[in-house]
Amino acid sequence: MNLPSASDPVPDTTAATQTGAPEGAPTKNTAGDYSAMTYCVAVRNEAGLVFLSDSRTNAGVDQINTFRKMHVYEVPGERVLVLLTAGNLAISQSVASGLKVQMGTAGEKSLANAPNLFSAAKIVGEAVRKVHERDAAALKEFGIEFNVSLILGGQIKGEEPRLFNIYAAGNFIEATPETPYFQIGESKYGKPILDRVIGGQLSLDEVAKCCLISMDSTMKSNLSVGLPLDLLCYEKDSFEVKRRAQIDGKDPYFTSLRERWGEQLRKVFNELPDPGYWN
Amino acid sequence: MNLPSASDPVPDTTAATQTGAPEGAPTKNTAGDYSAMTYCVAVRNEAGLVFLSDSRTNAGVDQINTFRKMHVYEVPGERVLVLLTAGNLAISQSVASGLKVQMGTAGEKSLANAPNLFSAAKIVGEAVRKVHERDAAALKEFGIEFNVSLILGGQIKGEEPRLFNIYAAGNFIEATPETPYFQIGESKYGKPILDRVIGGQLSLDEVAKCCLISMDSTMKSNLSVGLPLDLLCYEKDSFEVKRRAQIDGKDPYFTSLRERWGEQLRKVFNELPDPGYWN
Repeated sequence: MNLPSASDPVPDTTAATQTGAPEGAPTKNTAGDYSAMTYCVAVRNEAGLVFLSDSRTNAGVDQINTFRKMHVYEVPGERVLVLLTAGNLAISQSVASGLKVQMGTAGEKSLANAPNLFSAAKIVGEAVRKVHERDAAALKEFGIEFNVSLILGGQIKGEEPRLFNIYAAGNFIEATPETPYFQIGESKYGKPILDRVIGGQLSLDEVAKCCLISMDSTMKSNLSVGLPLDLLCYEKDSFEVKRRAQIDGKDPYFTSLRERWGEQLRKVFNELPDPGYWN
Repeated sequence: MNLPSASDPVPDTTAATQTGAPEGAPTKNTAGDYSAMTYCVAVRNEAGLVFLSDSRTNAGVDQINTFRKMHVYEVPGERVLVLLTAGNLAISQSVASGLKVQMGTAGEKSLANAPNLFSAAKIVGEAVRKVHERDAAALKEFGIEFNVSLILGGQIKGEEPRLFNIYAAGNFIEATPETPYFQIGESKYGKPILDRVIGGQLSLDEVAKCCLISMDSTMKSNLSVGLPLDLLCYEKDSFEVKRRAQIDGKDPYFTSLRERWGEQLRKVFNELPDPGYWN
């Protein structure tokens, strides 16, 4: 599992410990706290699972860095697990790191041998609690809340695909047909389009399109969420990652989607009648 | 100025002082703190000003009440001032009440005699500071932040229409051609549509339509923002309120706008191509 593996960008720990928050910044960007500085969304439906994450983190306007927030673990034919992280970067990296150590330790319960997704979510929750035990008191002394939020989804042989949202307290909830998606990080700008579209019988590609539009709305209204994006569509019962893309600023599909969505939205807006309350 | 006048609904002070916040509620709903429980937006452009506010406040899911958040002061031919409020209801009512007392006191600086909108914004800021002096310490003992946010806009003879956003500290900023709108309360869900549409040469009715769609997106994603709505369009240099509407759940225009916007959005969504990263 690349949690974080040698191929991941090396975390710039100086950035995470500097206080770069400008006056009036909405969140405290100290001690690795990038609370509202990310956006991840994951959807489960009949066809499988879709995961999308941005990769921007910042500690004030002059400190913008790129960290991957999507971690993938795959045993072809047996299991695919995807973890998305938001919140304090130091905490989420510690959690990911702890999970990786477990997987390399013989005889230890880990994401590599969890019998089902529920057990896997418990393992992630326990990893969060371990970091809490170690770091929460020290963070509190600096006035920093213990802030992390995770999405875990995937499929383990013998089960349907499942999707969980794991909180800072280590507890978690599972997606249902009525609540088929989870968002973490800066979630509000991109929620209306999900609420309007997700829910019907959509293909994975349609769900991916909806998530990309949701991401576009978020990026348009919040500069701290940014490219590149990581997109993964998991096809139910495939037990293999076949559809994964990294989307940067030059990506022709995403560029065209953003332009056309904006244009069409303005067109629809213009075609709707104006209010006539006073005519 | 109906700040609040005898014709306003009588505030149910029991609701405001009860602790009705359910477990896991995002904000503390005690001592009149309805932080994220409202949405107001105001836009200034070449044609004039548009104001829109909802009227829902709640203290937990079983405590939903309706209070007006739009206060209008008009001297036909001379001035029109509109105040929108969000945040702790006890604080915003105290501010509105203080402003009303000032207007009735001979020789006192008030919104009735402020020579320009900037002075009017200062008067509102000072009213906020007075309530802060009186209440902030007591609120702090209950762990409640002094939380209020206001929008003041209008036109006073001799000036162009102006629009201000006044903070809890009593300081304020003014809208500019580059930043032509302000939102207070639960602002994120409804921001993307404003960012996409507002800015061009729009009529007041088009701006009102955009604000109503922004409100619809907010209401769709957050149950705590709700009908009825207060809409006011102020035509530049009219020095008179000619276009004002209260919009409830049976309003045919708003009902049709919501339905058609949702339908058209899904239509545009369906017409856009799916991602083809893995084909």
